[in-house]
Amino acid sequence: MGEVKSVKVDNWGVFFLQKLQNFFNKTDYCDLTLQFRDNSQLKVHRLVLSACTDYFNVLEQNCEIVDDALIMPNEFQADVVVPIVNFMYTGTLEFELKMYGKLLRTAKEMNMTVLLKLLEAHRRTMENVNRQQ
Amino acid sequence: MGEVKSVKVDNWGVFFLQKLQNFFNKTDYCDLTLQFRDNSQLKVHRLVLSACTDYFNVLEQNCEIVDDALIMPNEFQADVVVPIVNFMYTGTLEFELKMYGKLLRTAKEMNMTVLLKLLEAHRRTMENVNRQQ
Repeated sequence: MGEVKSVKVDNWGVFFLQKLQNFFNKTDYCDLTLQFRDNSQLKVHRLVLSACTDYFNVLEQNCEIVDDALIMPNEFQADVVVPIVNFMYTGTLEFELKMYGKLLRTAKEMNMTVLLKLLEAHRRTMENVNRQQ
Repeated sequence: MGEVKSVKVDNWGVFFLQKLQNFFNKTDYCDLTLQFRDNSQLKVHRLVLSACTDYFNVLEQNCEIVDDALIMPNEFQADVVVPIVNFMYTGTLEFELKMYGKLLRTAKEMNMTVLLKLLEAHRRTMENVNRQQ
């Protein structure tokens, strides 16, 4: 075997995630549709969801699928699922403070360790701020 | 609307890419099989390939598919495709020096700008080394 070389791109993960975000924003290559009670839908990539949680795979096996759309259970509606899916594609969670408890419960339910840690770190920060005021 | 908070995970892209690499190594959630002349196969995720190049999407539309496997053209065999697909999942290209020209041609053919720049930067480095010797 000849001489083996290894060359590396810096920040490939960041570049790659940006590509997936572009696909998500344009709904390119999406292979799953989440259907909410208010008739809104969210088109996603199964692979991205699977990288973060098994929850949607289990749901697909046990839940109703109508016109290729996965009918989301009552406790997993757009108000929590949209910010959490956005988090999957970006690593950033944007939320209204009043949603904190509901998001924490959903992250637990979905067994999303990284998101749980992020939410708990945020709570500690808030507690410290309140203590100092 | 209430107060909106934004919390961010550091290095989410790196974490995410690592998850996809694990899936690739275990062939979990793979939805496309590349078939080479030597009968070896490579199981991949269409989404990952699509994030890097349109080449495989075009190939799927124009090429032979046997038993759910995409028959790869003669000039795109395992010797170049395997290192390039590994690059897609890692951002690192490992190659034997004698493969340089063939990899460069393949990266051009696949229109993979980032990989092309990486290979050209490597060539310039090599030329400088040779000049100094």
